[in-house]
Amino acid sequence: MRLSQILFVTLREDPAEAEIPSHKLLIRAGYIRRIGSGIYAYLPFMWRVLQKVSQIVREELNATGAQESLFPQLQPADLWRESGRWDTYTQAEGIMFSLTDRQERELGLGPTHEEVVTTLAREMIRSYRQLPINLYQIQNKFRDEIRPRFGLLRGREFIMKDAYSFHADEESLKKTYQDMYQAYSNIISRCGLAFRAVDADSGAIGGSGSNEFTILAEAGEDEVLYTEDGQYAANVEKAVSLPTDAELSQFTNYEKRETPGTETIEKLCKFLNCSPTQLVKNVLYQAVYENGITVLVIVSIRGDQDVNEVKLQNELVKLAPQFGAKAAIALQVPDAEAQEKWAAKPLPLGYIAPDISDEYIQADKQIHPKFIRFVDQTAVELKNFVTGANESNYHVVGANWGEQFQLSQLVDIRKASSGDRAIHNPQQTLQSARGIEVGHIFQLGDKYSKAMGATYTSEQGEEVPLVMGCYGIGVSRLAQSAVEQSYDKDGIIWPVAIAPYHVIIAVPNVGDAQQMEVAEKLYNQLNQAGIETLLDDRNERAGVKFKDADLIGIPYRIVTGRSLQSGKVEVVERATRRSQEIPIDEVVSTIKQWIETALTVNRKQ
Amino acid sequence: MRLSQILFVTLREDPAEAEIPSHKLLIRAGYIRRIGSGIYAYLPFMWRVLQKVSQIVREELNATGAQESLFPQLQPADLWRESGRWDTYTQAEGIMFSLTDRQERELGLGPTHEEVVTTLAREMIRSYRQLPINLYQIQNKFRDEIRPRFGLLRGREFIMKDAYSFHADEESLKKTYQDMYQAYSNIISRCGLAFRAVDADSGAIGGSGSNEFTILAEAGEDEVLYTEDGQYAANVEKAVSLPTDAELSQFTNYEKRETPGTETIEKLCKFLNCSPTQLVKNVLYQAVYENGITVLVIVSIRGDQDVNEVKLQNELVKLAPQFGAKAAIALQVPDAEAQEKWAAKPLPLGYIAPDISDEYIQADKQIHPKFIRFVDQTAVELKNFVTGANESNYHVVGANWGEQFQLSQLVDIRKASSGDRAIHNPQQTLQSARGIEVGHIFQLGDKYSKAMGATYTSEQGEEVPLVMGCYGIGVSRLAQSAVEQSYDKDGIIWPVAIAPYHVIIAVPNVGDAQQMEVAEKLYNQLNQAGIETLLDDRNERAGVKFKDADLIGIPYRIVTGRSLQSGKVEVVERATRRSQEIPIDEVVSTIKQWIETALTVNRKQ
Repeated sequence: MRLSQILFVTLREDPAEAEIPSHKLLIRAGYIRRIGSGIYAYLPFMWRVLQKVSQIVREELNATGAQESLFPQLQPADLWRESGRWDTYTQAEGIMFSLTDRQERELGLGPTHEEVVTTLAREMIRSYRQLPINLYQIQNKFRDEIRPRFGLLRGREFIMKDAYSFHADEESLKKTYQDMYQAYSNIISRCGLAFRAVDADSGAIGGSGSNEFTILAEAGEDEVLYTEDGQYAANVEKAVSLPTDAELSQFTNYEKRETPGTETIEKLCKFLNCSPTQLVKNVLYQAVYENGITVLVIVSIRGDQDVNEVKLQNELVKLAPQFGAKAAIALQVPDAEAQEKWAAKPLPLGYIAPDISDEYIQADKQIHPKFIRFVDQTAVELKNFVTGANESNYHVVGANWGEQFQLSQLVDIRKASSGDRAIHNPQQTLQSARGIEVGHIFQLGDKYSKAMGATYTSEQGEEVPLVMGCYGIGVSRLAQSAVEQSYDKDGIIWPVAIAPYHVIIAVPNVGDAQQMEVAEKLYNQLNQAGIETLLDDRNERAGVKFKDADLIGIPYRIVTGRSLQSGKVEVVERATRRSQEIPIDEVVSTIKQWIETALTVNRKQ
Repeated sequence: MRLSQILFVTLREDPAEAEIPSHKLLIRAGYIRRIGSGIYAYLPFMWRVLQKVSQIVREELNATGAQESLFPQLQPADLWRESGRWDTYTQAEGIMFSLTDRQERELGLGPTHEEVVTTLAREMIRSYRQLPINLYQIQNKFRDEIRPRFGLLRGREFIMKDAYSFHADEESLKKTYQDMYQAYSNIISRCGLAFRAVDADSGAIGGSGSNEFTILAEAGEDEVLYTEDGQYAANVEKAVSLPTDAELSQFTNYEKRETPGTETIEKLCKFLNCSPTQLVKNVLYQAVYENGITVLVIVSIRGDQDVNEVKLQNELVKLAPQFGAKAAIALQVPDAEAQEKWAAKPLPLGYIAPDISDEYIQADKQIHPKFIRFVDQTAVELKNFVTGANESNYHVVGANWGEQFQLSQLVDIRKASSGDRAIHNPQQTLQSARGIEVGHIFQLGDKYSKAMGATYTSEQGEEVPLVMGCYGIGVSRLAQSAVEQSYDKDGIIWPVAIAPYHVIIAVPNVGDAQQMEVAEKLYNQLNQAGIETLLDDRNERAGVKFKDADLIGIPYRIVTGRSLQSGKVEVVERATRRSQEIPIDEVVSTIKQWIETALTVNRKQ
């Protein structure tokens, strides 16, 4: 493609709308343009990158036997009502755009397709002999994000590959899940990116097991914890670990102490001259179930530890049936306004005990909250601990479970963090890395097939629910993540496999007949050799051309400049900036070799 | 692909939801499944067909220098307000789905992308040196159809290729338009389909010139008029022609006659013993402009002719400014309910004159309609004609323009029909064919660039609006149209170029080792030769396999049956049912040759 003939506009200044490097660079280099909040147009270069990622995704998925399909983006509300997700997705979380058509029928814009695919499976799968089946699609998805940002990383319209597999049993699911795990690893490797596959929380999608694929990048929103031995890696939301040891408590006698102005752990430790590991911290939450029932939650945890709210939310979902609900839908720290509804007098925040005395709750308030108490394992192990006295400016010291306080629900509700010891091997310490989640695979089990009545006739002649898996990878997200992982001060550095073009030929002076002649010749030869080549034949200064080539990040730049005198051209590798002069008639074979090597290395990883 | 390993379900019965053959067959053969009204899932076979059509579209568009992009489906309402189309598209015609996000911002689901692309052009195009530019995308579009039907032909979510070109002047637009015209012709030919490119009305998209590409099929909703000499073809909405001659009137004296019970042309002609070509028929319409102004329209036309309501609507749009509006948005035949609002007494329908007397309209009614009278050329030419007397059961005979009736707006508002004489050559008679419109190209001019302020700096240094073209082809529509053009009682007959697979190998008895061995060998050889092959290795009777193969319409069927005894397989061509026995080691080269021939023929058309 000739740059003079395409819509090629680069910007010198960082756009105001962008916060992180990849977002800035994709706009500056003319890959994307913002059309609305979280909504982007993909310009021709970006389209090529997206197609390359998609093609790699296709090849790896087809290799597993998955079949490409295309499901509708408009989804009838009734399907989502069958699965029980309509209200959660359109109202409680409000993540799904919904609309009504001219007949006043409700429709949602698909953020995911479990309902649609389960409907197809219900209609089409009758017998175990048709199983397993794995269908996938590559398509625009929609999410009404609370705060769209970071360009394609958290957009409201984005390209995903989503796959849905159906099985006769868990064993078959696990095999396909493993195949997909491998396919996802291959996809990201082939795109030339460093990543970690980690244990993950299943979130709103549900099911038993799940893994995330996280592309490592400093500006990433996700935190990954892993061990050096490669035996453990998990999203911080899911991670488990052994905490550091607690110090022995010096408070061997139980007593209530006045501890004025010690609302924070730090202040309290300073005041009492003790370690936070000797404290039981009691954190208050308020959970509202979908049926409106409000539950007050007190989590007791060791003073130096933090609550993992995803784990807490999961525990609350498990308890939902006892409150007559399906899920806890909102977890809040009860602020003054929330307390107003049920607290008889202001809570002694900062001084709360592992339980909360009745004097704070009164029967004539609007809401009569139910109570749950959780004690994290780190708190359970403490002896002679310090904790709140349920009275402002007072703590108790030398307390013990079974004496002053009763043990309640024991759970792992603690946030693992770097520096913790690994469970599989306490010699290993958890390390932390930041990244961008680009893939997520789930063992769903029969959650959707049961809810929607998607059954098959087993070999034994029984009608049983299909076992399901689902697998998502963000195509547009992966493309931007590649930039976030690979750029420098001058611009993007595309991995060879997903660069929009392999080579850019910069002609320093288009008025120079020899420069143009060599450039045209190489342009034709490279394209004929299957090497995708841009020809910068614009009537611009060489400096502008070099700057633009660096900005758009094409892996190899050929310059038909001074070296022509000796029958050579200059070839610069974008990533390393290594420059070398290569005889004109060796350029095509040399670059072809480089490209093949780059692609082969990624295939083997 | 092995049929035993994919989700392959065919139906023996026609689905109740389908009216036309192509819709029935696509469902029965397992290509598509309905998810909601006008909303379909494309199963793996259909996906392959759509990809093949898309690939042909891409190749032909890339050859013109157009560049593939991808624009958002969610479109901010503000862009559509700038172009002035938001109200028309979301309310008056209601064809665009609209929704509000969690911030209560309005969004539309793109049925077309003039606004988005013009926004990009406004931001990115500064100078004539950047022109011309042609951007295209292949994407799901949405239309909230009043009556979704015919499967993918009139769905609410469908795949389109849409392209938008920008130019410095009309001459450049005309060149690109011509290139696109040729590209569209190539695309449809290469898909193996018979079509006509016809003059067309520009409709709501606007602009000066436009052509439609109509795939010929008897069940098609569109009518095309053309001449045998190939010099003229037009959509019936746009077609012009010379009517047949009128008979000379026998009513040389003007008089009012009692003509009881002659509300129809047929009854009147019988009563007066005259030809309908001697009559002036006066047709009443009511047009409501976007600002609510109601206009009563009387169209006078020769008795044997019909009003072309698209032409009428276009005339009304032209007059909109004089009524303070931008467009006429609803054209109705005023029924009793409509008349109630402005008629003082019931209109003498069937007896209306070229004007309407004041006695029928009264000042104390809710609406005071304005009047427009149009006289079609066919009526203008009549002398001593018969027409209504504005009084029930009375007509006048021997009337003349300029005597009893004043001539008003002369327009071509007549519906051309088969049998009319062609304007370019009155010796040629218009023929009629039915078909399905799959493509439409428009010379938009500066309609959108002016409205949205998309200008560029010309060579003379002036800031002028960009000149635009736009070009759409329905990918999913074209795919179904192919079936509508090509099927028989047993199923689909795919053209080779867009068949999901080229070959299906039917193994009559999978328990027969020799049959399976030959089938597996051919399966591998064919796939290696780039011939896309299905292997029907299901444990089913031969009859079921042959029926399914016919139904899904794969061009060539190989049967590894009795002929194996003589070292041959049977090969059946789906379209012709021609069967021949071919030595096993010649099968691959023979079929490869057939496929290449089929593709080459279509490329040359």
